Amino acid sequence: MPLHIPIITLTTDFGYRGPLAGIMKGVILGINPEARIIDLTHEIGQYNVREAALTIGMSYMQFPKQTIHVVITDPGVGSRRKPVLVRTENHYFVGPDNGVFSMVYSGHEQCRVIHLTVEHYFLSSRSTTFDGRDVFAPVAAHLANGVPLSAVGASINDPLRLAIPRPQQTPHGWQGEVIHIDHFGSLSSNIRLEHLGHPAQVKVRVRGRTIDGMVQTFGERPPGTLVALYGSTGNLIVSVVNGSAAELLKAKIGDRVEVFVAE
Amino acid sequence: MPLHIPIITLTTDFGYRGPLAGIMKGVILGINPEARIIDLTHEIGQYNVREAALTIGMSYMQFPKQTIHVVITDPGVGSRRKPVLVRTENHYFVGPDNGVFSMVYSGHEQCRVIHLTVEHYFLSSRSTTFDGRDVFAPVAAHLANGVPLSAVGASINDPLRLAIPRPQQTPHGWQGEVIHIDHFGSLSSNIRLEHLGHPAQVKVRVRGRTIDGMVQTFGERPPGTLVALYGSTGNLIVSVVNGSAAELLKAKIGDRVEVFVAE
Amino acid sequence: MPLHIPIITLTTDFGYRGPLAGIMKGVILGINPEARIIDLTHEIGQYNVREAALTIGMSYMQFPKQTIHVVITDPGVGSRRKPVLVRTENHYFVGPDNGVFSMVYSGHEQCRVIHLTVEHYFLSSRSTTFDGRDVFAPVAAHLANGVPLSAVGASINDPLRLAIPRPQQTPHGWQGEVIHIDHFGSLSSNIRLEHLGHPAQVKVRVRGRTIDGMVQTFGERPPGTLVALYGSTGNLIVSVVNGSAAELLKAKIGDRVEVFVAE
Repeated sequence: MPLHIPIITLTTDFGYRGPLAGIMKGVILGINPEARIIDLTHEIGQYNVREAALTIGMSYMQFPKQTIHVVITDPGVGSRRKPVLVRTENHYFVGPDNGVFSMVYSGHEQCRVIHLTVEHYFLSSRSTTFDGRDVFAPVAAHLANGVPLSAVGASINDPLRLAIPRPQQTPHGWQGEVIHIDHFGSLSSNIRLEHLGHPAQVKVRVRGRTIDGMVQTFGERPPGTLVALYGSTGNLIVSVVNGSAAELLKAKIGDRVEVFVAE
Repeated sequence: MPLHIPIITLTTDFGYRGPLAGIMKGVILGINPEARIIDLTHEIGQYNVREAALTIGMSYMQFPKQTIHVVITDPGVGSRRKPVLVRTENHYFVGPDNGVFSMVYSGHEQCRVIHLTVEHYFLSSRSTTFDGRDVFAPVAAHLANGVPLSAVGASINDPLRLAIPRPQQTPHGWQGEVIHIDHFGSLSSNIRLEHLGHPAQVKVRVRGRTIDGMVQTFGERPPGTLVALYGSTGNLIVSVVNGSAAELLKAKIGDRVEVFVAE
Repeated sequence: MPLHIPIITLTTDFGYRGPLAGIMKGVILGINPEARIIDLTHEIGQYNVREAALTIGMSYMQFPKQTIHVVITDPGVGSRRKPVLVRTENHYFVGPDNGVFSMVYSGHEQCRVIHLTVEHYFLSSRSTTFDGRDVFAPVAAHLANGVPLSAVGASINDPLRLAIPRPQQTPHGWQGEVIHIDHFGSLSSNIRLEHLGHPAQVKVRVRGRTIDGMVQTFGERPPGTLVALYGSTGNLIVSVVNGSAAELLKAKIGDRVEVFVAE
């Protein structure tokens, strides 16, 4: 049965300068003209599988059930890395088996992972350098058309998972790291609401600076102030009100974030 | 009654690198899968309310009637600034009450402005940092579904208006300023066709350079020439044919533009 | 008869910062709300007609039949250059007659080229600086509505063609040039699969470096290796595995690419 509202998101490192993302959309619409295609971003760092994994991991749950997410950062295109389809309770994912779905796996007890092998659902003239066009876009569109999972390949049990850093509990609180820096220069850590909760007294330390307490919104402090708060995805973030924490702190992905909770 | 052709435009400072704009689209399509979503731009300068106000002010009238425009440059997200819906004769606008709709207000004698307070039309898990996802996207989508204005909140009379610079008549013509610099380096002034008309003889002065007469099209002068003309929105613009006036003149937003009209 | 699945692609030099591309989409949807609009790219180099010609030339055949491609790099907007519609066997193209369709013409024995003159299909308030909004977007949307070619203008026989460089056969193989550099820094040459085929032994020379043999996929060589292969469009490309050939070789558009084939 076709999906009632086929939504397909695209997350790639193709950039906006060239026609690659647009070509994928043409392929999708040629197979399923009803598909609603959403660019999550095409500015994943080139060949940066980890950034793609984190970006889709922070975003997919914000989409309606049955959304199909195509994620492509694919330095191994054309090699033996498998093209896969991942099925969670509410979402579908299509992309290379190179770790881009690591956060999806870690968020679910059970995922079904299917090795895409049935060439009937690929473009007939498959190249060796552009599986986005030749494999992932058409499979996503066929899925949206209602093609069943069993038709596109067989399940596998050992998909590739990146070692995504998890925060550690310490005697005094939590220790994590910066996993994402957004357009506004806010630093997202991997310490989340479900780890830390809402302690009465808390200090957050990053790049040698200590922030006393967390705020609920940026507006509680004057512009230029360094603040810690929960971001819209539930991650602990460090921001500068109306400014850039990344710039102020010269912070980068992987920097340590420590939280000290008072008894 | 649902809108026959729901078109929703997005104007934000979220950039294209991250998933924020895409997430808003997922929320919209989850509520109204028929919506046609158009990116006006996501490259408004960060926290630059004035630039957002000018961008939507130059653009909205180019869209079909009943288009819903979501405009978000929202440094005060989570604070006491109100989320609002603005209704003009032909368009709807959704965003923060921080001045982003100043040009909309100044273009209409009467606007209805509604403070969005009915949480039934927000996402159920509203965060404190992303009203684009939690408030503005869902309200826009519900509007597109035909939810009446009276259901989403009550009218207010005192929306925030920025002091948008207006051109002044002088003994010799008009004095205005550069309000926008486009991708091609053309300088848009706030002096418009309805101010100046088509005088037989005119000089335009900006950054110490005087341009003799206005042209109708770029093609009337050789590449590299500095010209003045009416742009596609009816504003007086200063351009370099096949080049960049911003670069040639080292011009910036706010630079004075003077027009001298001969009797 | 309206097209069953109207797909309209946009290729422009308007950039993503401003509202120009979005405004064109509003005009299209106002005339044909069913149109699926795809951004091929809005980052063509400013006024760079040749880059636009090459971009659409490499891309259009990847789209479903009956797709309408709007291509706008238009330094002569408002001048005497003609607005045109091009009809090939499977696609439509709309844009200025300034060479942007040169690759389309060279790929087809017969194209029908129509000078767009019937103002009924333009916006009623045509400006002199934005034919994208006033002419090309509305004509594309009317085409998608099923307006016949004969209604929009009369055929012409002398559309403008750029001298697109073609590769030359040499005593030892082929000589061509770099015609495109993609987001990953891969260099596309104008030497194509149908020129060169799959010779048993081949050397590729560019910027003083000689590459011994061609690979089928990036994965055949370790990261950092300079390789030659056929790209997804059938052009011979030079890449660095997981890196940037453009950066490594300091290459630019127009650089010579030589291929030596052993007997």
